[in-house]
Amino acid sequence: MITSIRRSVSRLPRGSLNYYRSQIKFYSAAAIPEFQKAVVFETNGGPLIYKDIPVPKPRANELLINVKYSGVCHTDLHAWKGDWPLATKLPLVGGHEGAGIVVGMGENVKGWKIGDYAGVKWLNGSCMSCEFCEEGNESNCDHADLSGYTHDGSFQEYATADSVQAARIPPGTDLAQVAPILCAGITVYKALKTANIRAGQWVAISGAGGGLGSLAIQYAKAMGFKPVAIDGGDAKGELCKSLGADIYVDFTKTDDMVKTMKEITGGGPHAVINVSVSTAAMQQSVDYVRPTGTVVLVGLPAHASVESKVFDSVVKSIKVAGSYVGNRADSREAIEFFSRGLIKSPIKMAGLSELPRIYEEMERGEIVGRYVVDTSK
Amino acid sequence: MITSIRRSVSRLPRGSLNYYRSQIKFYSAAAIPEFQKAVVFETNGGPLIYKDIPVPKPRANELLINVKYSGVCHTDLHAWKGDWPLATKLPLVGGHEGAGIVVGMGENVKGWKIGDYAGVKWLNGSCMSCEFCEEGNESNCDHADLSGYTHDGSFQEYATADSVQAARIPPGTDLAQVAPILCAGITVYKALKTANIRAGQWVAISGAGGGLGSLAIQYAKAMGFKPVAIDGGDAKGELCKSLGADIYVDFTKTDDMVKTMKEITGGGPHAVINVSVSTAAMQQSVDYVRPTGTVVLVGLPAHASVESKVFDSVVKSIKVAGSYVGNRADSREAIEFFSRGLIKSPIKMAGLSELPRIYEEMERGEIVGRYVVDTSK
Amino acid sequence: MITSIRRSVSRLPRGSLNYYRSQIKFYSAAAIPEFQKAVVFETNGGPLIYKDIPVPKPRANELLINVKYSGVCHTDLHAWKGDWPLATKLPLVGGHEGAGIVVGMGENVKGWKIGDYAGVKWLNGSCMSCEFCEEGNESNCDHADLSGYTHDGSFQEYATADSVQAARIPPGTDLAQVAPILCAGITVYKALKTANIRAGQWVAISGAGGGLGSLAIQYAKAMGFKPVAIDGGDAKGELCKSLGADIYVDFTKTDDMVKTMKEITGGGPHAVINVSVSTAAMQQSVDYVRPTGTVVLVGLPAHASVESKVFDSVVKSIKVAGSYVGNRADSREAIEFFSRGLIKSPIKMAGLSELPRIYEEMERGEIVGRYVVDTSK
Amino acid sequence: MITSIRRSVSRLPRGSLNYYRSQIKFYSAAAIPEFQKAVVFETNGGPLIYKDIPVPKPRANELLINVKYSGVCHTDLHAWKGDWPLATKLPLVGGHEGAGIVVGMGENVKGWKIGDYAGVKWLNGSCMSCEFCEEGNESNCDHADLSGYTHDGSFQEYATADSVQAARIPPGTDLAQVAPILCAGITVYKALKTANIRAGQWVAISGAGGGLGSLAIQYAKAMGFKPVAIDGGDAKGELCKSLGADIYVDFTKTDDMVKTMKEITGGGPHAVINVSVSTAAMQQSVDYVRPTGTVVLVGLPAHASVESKVFDSVVKSIKVAGSYVGNRADSREAIEFFSRGLIKSPIKMAGLSELPRIYEEMERGEIVGRYVVDTSK
Repeated sequence: MITSIRRSVSRLPRGSLNYYRSQIKFYSAAAIPEFQKAVVFETNGGPLIYKDIPVPKPRANELLINVKYSGVCHTDLHAWKGDWPLATKLPLVGGHEGAGIVVGMGENVKGWKIGDYAGVKWLNGSCMSCEFCEEGNESNCDHADLSGYTHDGSFQEYATADSVQAARIPPGTDLAQVAPILCAGITVYKALKTANIRAGQWVAISGAGGGLGSLAIQYAKAMGFKPVAIDGGDAKGELCKSLGADIYVDFTKTDDMVKTMKEITGGGPHAVINVSVSTAAMQQSVDYVRPTGTVVLVGLPAHASVESKVFDSVVKSIKVAGSYVGNRADSREAIEFFSRGLIKSPIKMAGLSELPRIYEEMERGEIVGRYVVDTSK
Repeated sequence: MITSIRRSVSRLPRGSLNYYRSQIKFYSAAAIPEFQKAVVFETNGGPLIYKDIPVPKPRANELLINVKYSGVCHTDLHAWKGDWPLATKLPLVGGHEGAGIVVGMGENVKGWKIGDYAGVKWLNGSCMSCEFCEEGNESNCDHADLSGYTHDGSFQEYATADSVQAARIPPGTDLAQVAPILCAGITVYKALKTANIRAGQWVAISGAGGGLGSLAIQYAKAMGFKPVAIDGGDAKGELCKSLGADIYVDFTKTDDMVKTMKEITGGGPHAVINVSVSTAAMQQSVDYVRPTGTVVLVGLPAHASVESKVFDSVVKSIKVAGSYVGNRADSREAIEFFSRGLIKSPIKMAGLSELPRIYEEMERGEIVGRYVVDTSK
Repeated sequence: MITSIRRSVSRLPRGSLNYYRSQIKFYSAAAIPEFQKAVVFETNGGPLIYKDIPVPKPRANELLINVKYSGVCHTDLHAWKGDWPLATKLPLVGGHEGAGIVVGMGENVKGWKIGDYAGVKWLNGSCMSCEFCEEGNESNCDHADLSGYTHDGSFQEYATADSVQAARIPPGTDLAQVAPILCAGITVYKALKTANIRAGQWVAISGAGGGLGSLAIQYAKAMGFKPVAIDGGDAKGELCKSLGADIYVDFTKTDDMVKTMKEITGGGPHAVINVSVSTAAMQQSVDYVRPTGTVVLVGLPAHASVESKVFDSVVKSIKVAGSYVGNRADSREAIEFFSRGLIKSPIKMAGLSELPRIYEEMERGEIVGRYVVDTSK
Repeated sequence: MITSIRRSVSRLPRGSLNYYRSQIKFYSAAAIPEFQKAVVFETNGGPLIYKDIPVPKPRANELLINVKYSGVCHTDLHAWKGDWPLATKLPLVGGHEGAGIVVGMGENVKGWKIGDYAGVKWLNGSCMSCEFCEEGNESNCDHADLSGYTHDGSFQEYATADSVQAARIPPGTDLAQVAPILCAGITVYKALKTANIRAGQWVAISGAGGGLGSLAIQYAKAMGFKPVAIDGGDAKGELCKSLGADIYVDFTKTDDMVKTMKEITGGGPHAVINVSVSTAAMQQSVDYVRPTGTVVLVGLPAHASVESKVFDSVVKSIKVAGSYVGNRADSREAIEFFSRGLIKSPIKMAGLSELPRIYEEMERGEIVGRYVVDTSK
């Protein structure tokens, strides 16, 4: 039974669950347990433990979301290993592609109601008042709070998220299918916006057959671009074409990628989205991009660099642009493309308790496609 | 003595001042009185009463600002008269150009500290999570909360403002001088951004000798544009030129404004900022703007219209764009130009208690320049 | 037989056909006759005469195009009647949607060869060195030369066109089908670019069931927008939906257009393309467009005006933008969408000799769809 | 005596001077000699010979310009040495900063008259009908014709230039002073436009004390930006400040450039213009640019590269953009800033005959400031 009430009992000891319950609107008194299942690690690279932990309490500006499903992203592996130049919270509950239902909220939350579908995404919250936040570059905020990194994430049944940043998911959406959109989808959509091209222009997707790439092809198509998919092997080729790629280029069968890319696009694609983390592929994209075009870097290999030959960059007037994650508008738009049925997100289901095994497979590079875990299992 | 402390006494009756004091960070317990001076009206067009009212309490997301000075804007007259198609709060404390000092804040406020300089501006707060807020068009938010209109404003000693929207004023700024920047300055700066022109291009300011116009000339100059000032009379001409106008056009001495404007700018200004509320002047600006140029409407005459001849609009490919008030970034930028000394804001000082007389003068159209009231008098 | 040769006989009397032939590259000496069929009028509103006239000679910068097919546009009627505030050349050969084959060119032409497919479009040529031409706003050039208006157009078998402005049509294109793209297609494509919206946003097409509107729906779809088609009657509704409109609004069955449009688009469409010449419809579009959105004026009713309420324009921060015809890039892009098979252009064929009858039908408003005349008949 | 006449004598042998004279409008029959002084080299790196050569003949689309003064640019050295990956015409007359007077023109030229001031700039001509030309990226045209590189340049008394690309110089301009604007000025102005920042934002100029840098500071100031000048030594510092730099950073006295740059600009400059050809300086600029900012590469060191760390680029969302030379609009605008007196261009005068010595000094890196040669000496 969904009931939206606000209790005003203010004499309860602060910090007790009942005190907290008295302050927030909630789904149903019975519905929110004191404890829940989660996967936690105490140290970077340490054991991933599936266990009971307390349900977190939303702050005045936060939602409490009953996470139903969460995607598993390569970034989760970096967070666990701690190999990026940015420290994680410890102990940490990872995960930043959580889709669920709002079951509680702090007293300062506006525009949400109990029962709304909501998403936990990479950017959990930001200050909203620095220069970056003011201009819609919230992910560049110095005080960015990151789900599954600096803020406990979606590998638990109940997670908190800043109500301004939490993703709004339309009613009726398949919560398992939408999960990977909350990071992978938003990221590639943002990269395509960063490319700054027009409908009708060529965009190459380097690494098109992988998880990010598959989404990128579909978003590119929905935005009116002409996607050229680059990957290796016939199976990837069939996948890419089925998702809407105008042309598939198999790099394993192509002697001269730069020449080939220029020929099939009449001078080079207007933009290249590098979702592959291959440095060599990134490097090549600088050479085959059309003059005045844009090379977008999206993948986050830990120590890679791309070299721009100054003479060529200048004479070709090209740009090399880093694209991180989307802001609130990008997130809403990326989800809307999904809700309209334009984006398919092939997933493999597992239980939250199986997460340690999934991390192992991911580390061994054995995963094809995207895992989504059911937090109730 | 400034002390920043957070008390955790949570057993006080909610709603009492002491309860409230216990929840907020504050300047000094002694510094915030229970009552303060304000100018209030109970009904639109009713008496403006200078009297004691309670000091408001900041909500979790709000600052409590000790307003030192407040500009008096023509909009305040509309709020009082209630002649705009948008109802005001009643009873109402008007004013939306308040400059002061942060003396308290709600528990959810980030990035501010007691003693910071802060401004109360027209847009007091917005939802931050609708499509408009997401894209930096917060003034177009359906839940926009307006100072001196739907939220008690700056014609009182202590005012509340959403911490995300409150203007940040650099330390050391002259708080009386900066007051008119908080509405008039931001508004003309936003209009100049809406014009979407480049450094080196012509911008006409129609109504350049008035309060908004004087600021518009200076901002235009600081942004690298070439301002053409339009107004009537020699005194206005001298003022406009002293503020940086490249050319002054006296409409009282010009037979054919369209021909003149085109001649002196080599084909028409690239943009026109209509700060005058003369419909005839607005209408003319559509005729003399350069092909592919932009006519910006800023002034808010209650019932005026501008007619675009379809044939001319199409063949000249011009735009007529409404510009409202700035967002957070516009506000920061407009204040920064002032802080750098590039914008002079000539003001006339008065006491808050004199406000009823000022409204009368304003209604009779007798005011030249901008009044700023000292809330302590 | 196509032969591309350049003769260097320079002793022939200037102005003779042979002299001219000696200066240009040509298709085949035999292929270009001295006389051709054309429809000519001597005075505005005077008789439209189908007769033999000399084949024109390309200037140094011009192509000579053997026009195979030409669309008939409402603008041709205005040119004939002379009811626009811009004088036509007299006597005049009308027409500005001509698709054909390059059969000759002046000595200064670069980048074209005999046998290329080329289009005669509204903008025949411009100075290329004024401020407008420099910035790609060639249609706003003071020296714009207009086909079928100030330069003999496409209602003849052989027409001349500036080689820089002539449209490039890919080999293999159906020249009859592509004809209406050369004006109608480019115009609506430009209007959609002027709307300045993103893939995924709502665009209303007012007058969607007509010739321009039908094309606008298809371009909008191809660009990733969500088109809302507005017109009257069920037949138009079926057409609009078959062309890709997400929603059809029948204004004959809608009590409150403003309310309806806001409801179905969640606050108003982000842009409106007014291809209807109904002033009332244009006026309404200003009321239902989404805040911060853009109303685009495209149709050219001779004496209509659109009124913007200043208060609403400002508070809603909307733009009213005139959009004329496309530049070279717009033309190339619009044709490319057609060549990719994304745009269908339903036409009715007739012979050039039937043009007088077509003008009569057009004046009586009896034409549904777009006539294309075969210049050989 | 200036006379503008067009002779129609068409029987003269093509190619003879008299034939040519009969086809062009000219200054005065007597004024254009058959031979002129020029500096020519036959092979890359071979002798620079000051000698008499024939006056060139303008083609149908070209101007004949009596070059009065020409700047000497570092690019001229590369053209002579042939060390760039693009072959020069041979034999070659170098120079691409020529300012002079129109004395003749081909029959197809529009919008110019004998006696106009005109400039020979790097981009002598382009096809005007490829995708790049259509969009105002004429310098990226595959058929770009380059003065002093693929087309004889301004180190001669009479040079030809495509009339669409030739720079328009306002009457009364000091032709010696304006010469360096035609390459150096346009280049830095274009780079500042490529930076895509707003008035009031920080722009760092790396190499600010040199020829390009001195101009960049002044353009940045005129555009409303806040320039931070970076160079070495006190003399450069004084120069930079006198030209308008808000701050001077002496890299010879700064331990940690990245830290310093971030501190003085509150987080890094919004853009960096690298006019220095130091690879290390370019590399540093990637590290200190503000998140979401743009690093612009302008200088053309023959074999240098800039490395972008992928992780940092992505997380900081920065762009590295190559900027080449300006288009027609950029050129007009850059010259207009100069004509308004906002840009000073300190030059050293020499005679054209002294050019070989100047090349030697330039190669030895001994030149401070910019040489301008008088073609009559």
